[in-house]
Amino acid sequence: MPVETISWKNGKIRYIDQTLLPHKVKFVDCSSIKKLWTAIKRLEIRGAPAIGIAGALGVALVAVKSKANTPKALLKEVRKCVKYLASSRPTAVNLFWALARMERRARSNDSLPAQDLKNLLVAEATEIIDEDKASCRAMARHGAKLIKNYDVILTHCNAGGLATADYGTALGVLFEAKREGKRIKVYVDETRPLLQGARLTAWELLNEGIDTTLICDNMAASLMAKGIIDKIFVGADRVAFNGDVANKIGTYSLAVLAKYHKVPFYVVAPLSTFDFNIKTGREIPIEERSADEVRCVFGKRVAPRNVKVYNPAFDVTPAPLITAIITEKGIFQPTRLELVNKTDEIKRRR
Amino acid sequence: MPVETISWKNGKIRYIDQTLLPHKVKFVDCSSIKKLWTAIKRLEIRGAPAIGIAGALGVALVAVKSKANTPKALLKEVRKCVKYLASSRPTAVNLFWALARMERRARSNDSLPAQDLKNLLVAEATEIIDEDKASCRAMARHGAKLIKNYDVILTHCNAGGLATADYGTALGVLFEAKREGKRIKVYVDETRPLLQGARLTAWELLNEGIDTTLICDNMAASLMAKGIIDKIFVGADRVAFNGDVANKIGTYSLAVLAKYHKVPFYVVAPLSTFDFNIKTGREIPIEERSADEVRCVFGKRVAPRNVKVYNPAFDVTPAPLITAIITEKGIFQPTRLELVNKTDEIKRRR
Repeated sequence: MPVETISWKNGKIRYIDQTLLPHKVKFVDCSSIKKLWTAIKRLEIRGAPAIGIAGALGVALVAVKSKANTPKALLKEVRKCVKYLASSRPTAVNLFWALARMERRARSNDSLPAQDLKNLLVAEATEIIDEDKASCRAMARHGAKLIKNYDVILTHCNAGGLATADYGTALGVLFEAKREGKRIKVYVDETRPLLQGARLTAWELLNEGIDTTLICDNMAASLMAKGIIDKIFVGADRVAFNGDVANKIGTYSLAVLAKYHKVPFYVVAPLSTFDFNIKTGREIPIEERSADEVRCVFGKRVAPRNVKVYNPAFDVTPAPLITAIITEKGIFQPTRLELVNKTDEIKRRR
Repeated sequence: MPVETISWKNGKIRYIDQTLLPHKVKFVDCSSIKKLWTAIKRLEIRGAPAIGIAGALGVALVAVKSKANTPKALLKEVRKCVKYLASSRPTAVNLFWALARMERRARSNDSLPAQDLKNLLVAEATEIIDEDKASCRAMARHGAKLIKNYDVILTHCNAGGLATADYGTALGVLFEAKREGKRIKVYVDETRPLLQGARLTAWELLNEGIDTTLICDNMAASLMAKGIIDKIFVGADRVAFNGDVANKIGTYSLAVLAKYHKVPFYVVAPLSTFDFNIKTGREIPIEERSADEVRCVFGKRVAPRNVKVYNPAFDVTPAPLITAIITEKGIFQPTRLELVNKTDEIKRRR
């Protein structure tokens, strides 16, 4: 069982500092909203569902620490916190989804005594965690149906337990297939610049006893050309209304290569990652990060100090390149997302 | 002007230790054939034409150091050296080409006094260097015709002065375009695992005052999707008779992406890189290197110690994905290589 990545413990946010993996499993107890913002920004907490949870827990933290005696005063603090945390990272929609849900919860209960409202916000945040756990397990069950015995699977970045509350999206599917007794082999893209594949995914897969081989990102095509890869599973940071998917940089590259080599390309994402306010992938804001993430590897400089760098953290894969999107509600054609049952999760975001 | 990567100085082989770049430009004077073998193996000397030159200079070194009094005894030492150096790296054919040329030179002059034969071998090795310099400049002139003012070019790994005697294959073309007054912008794939793009190509381009931007290998597709890349230029380690090209791992990936995005994809390689004894790319031996090149970056471990690794140093790009191959004899369609003038260089290898 994967570790509990992020949770609510004794009135604080407990999370694994993912920048230290795989060398060290360090849990941090966080009771400062500034520290939380930095943890998201620095990718101590990362993965679309996990940063959604971090946002919700951040609002809960502000609520329990608040000295506000009136719901109005508390609501003001909640709004300030929502705005602040929303400024940490721009691409994964789960953050905005969770923050909006917390704010809505506060607003629609602003006639309650302040203490009750505080309790309600903690309950809402832990509810989001429980829903994440349940939806990851549902995605895993749906997705595992696509995996055959002896399949060789490629994955990119980390869409594992570390990207969610505890089980994972794309990796959850692989964990489930393993549990069902299917023998699978997984190739993992190391995923430059921050090496989430090498550091996090390889670690999670080995912990689950899955046959794992690490490659550099530029080796995936060569494996596909040899007919070694049967299927590709990745996560998502935002799914647009037309089925375009933003995910970790390099995902689009893999999707084009998969199309060329006729390898099925699956995206695994909960409905909290869908943003039907965004018509196409072109509208999804793509975070660009520091040049030194590329010029340096773990503090060691590997390129000329003065070289310019282009460092987008994400790219957008157009729907036609995606074989299917696996959600907790089932498996959908990305070009037929109107078939996704428009549950409260999606409607409430509008 | 790029630095002199490898040369014959006072009876020794002088080369830049490329593992130390871009931090330190260190010239090594090598007078041991074992040290030379290790320098090739460890990529202190790398790049197909440069390791060909290293092979030739290695034979010259053995000759000048030899105590043999008879041409027969000297020829025996030469053959031993050729066999030994040929075991250093398997993919770039220039090494075998240069070693065979040196051995042939020795064999066909085995009636000369030993000292004359020694002098002849030094002369042959320096002739190979001079030919490399001339052919790089010829390739540069041919290739630069393909570059327009304001072109944005992508390159992979290092096909620069550091991969040749002093000027480069793919980068030679860019240097020439710059010299002709064309304003170009170059994106450089960092080229994992050994980061020759980040460490060597970025350094060379900046030294020449070319507008250079470094990216991770997995970002190239995203640039192509945005229509930013006009042309791709790469080097080669071996060109088969059918026009398939072995080059640094990740080249095939770029070629598929280029095809998909309709970006012209050019290979720049001297005739010493052509191996017409090899019918197709499938027959080219692909070196697999140590797992720790991927698990570690500059000695810093970035992945679980026990994770398996697949680390091919090269891949093969089929001829139909290549727009043209630029040689010192002109520009050729890779699928029409029978048009390449079968000069002595190619014939003599048979």
